[in-house]
Amino acid sequence: MAPVGPRSGDAIFSSIDRVNAELFTLTYGAIVRQLLTDLEEVEEVNKQLDQMGYNIGIRLIDEFLAKSGVSRCVDFKETAEMIAKVGFKMFLGVTASVTSWDSDGTCCSIILEDNPLVDFVELPDTCQGLYYCNVLSGVIRGALEMVSMKTEVTWTRDVLRGDDAYELQVKLLKQVAEEYPYKDDE
Amino acid sequence: MAPVGPRSGDAIFSSIDRVNAELFTLTYGAIVRQLLTDLEEVEEVNKQLDQMGYNIGIRLIDEFLAKSGVSRCVDFKETAEMIAKVGFKMFLGVTASVTSWDSDGTCCSIILEDNPLVDFVELPDTCQGLYYCNVLSGVIRGALEMVSMKTEVTWTRDVLRGDDAYELQVKLLKQVAEEYPYKDDE
Repeated sequence: MAPVGPRSGDAIFSSIDRVNAELFTLTYGAIVRQLLTDLEEVEEVNKQLDQMGYNIGIRLIDEFLAKSGVSRCVDFKETAEMIAKVGFKMFLGVTASVTSWDSDGTCCSIILEDNPLVDFVELPDTCQGLYYCNVLSGVIRGALEMVSMKTEVTWTRDVLRGDDAYELQVKLLKQVAEEYPYKDDE
Repeated sequence: MAPVGPRSGDAIFSSIDRVNAELFTLTYGAIVRQLLTDLEEVEEVNKQLDQMGYNIGIRLIDEFLAKSGVSRCVDFKETAEMIAKVGFKMFLGVTASVTSWDSDGTCCSIILEDNPLVDFVELPDTCQGLYYCNVLSGVIRGALEMVSMKTEVTWTRDVLRGDDAYELQVKLLKQVAEEYPYKDDE
């Protein structure tokens, strides 16, 4: 039986429960501020945000698969397109594009056209090494791990750091057999 | 000139930027988990969540006033109704009701019919003293302080603690002259 085709990010986004984007932005800002206060080292904050994102990603993938109608992607290229076109729209209401594929199709860039995490954000001089949106890279890494793809996700451009766009590099390290690295609340 | 009437929470909610509620829920869960790890004492976590909420509230009030068309409320009763009917709808997409007024109209309860913060949440035994949604009480306290009302906001019922509803008691301590307790990012 042919699988039901994936729904568009727009269609999904308009049909699911949502909250005010500004509340989300401010709540995320409160996390970052809290971590900066508690951990002091910017490097540690980057790590922690990524880990938080990972924990979110390994759960969010269920919602993604359930609501999007997307089944297994044929390859990493299709996976990346799905993240950019359906995932970002479905969760953040923004669109993203995929570029800069390497020759063997295992590394690409995802460019965000809009980034609701950073509204009203300016980094003070003391936070110059901060990857403010590091939760996003963690989410992608966590979500992909749940569909058997080990990846490395890093920010290659960041407007808060003076670049002209938000760009994530997503690199497929290996495709593994199904794993369930559940981290439950205990 | 008569002020423009307030818009309904529904109308505002459908016209503003939003993000996926599950992403918000999981992100909020990640904060709470982080705080529990970092601070260890549940009492400290409650305090910190409240403080985070306060910091969010003193900013969110601007969005509320700008988007809702609400101008100064005539009294605390109208204010409470506005929070329940417009505020909760506008930010969380849920409705709430106001009950249990005391005789002099300075203390009431806000009952949430739905609470997106707690989807998928179960508190482990070690967290029994936790007020998981304490960010909400802080938001209300912070927002009201920006419109000259000092309040005390406490949870009187909490489903996560075994009660049959989410109920916040909001008590007006005093109405003060305009104050600007801005806490900027420095």
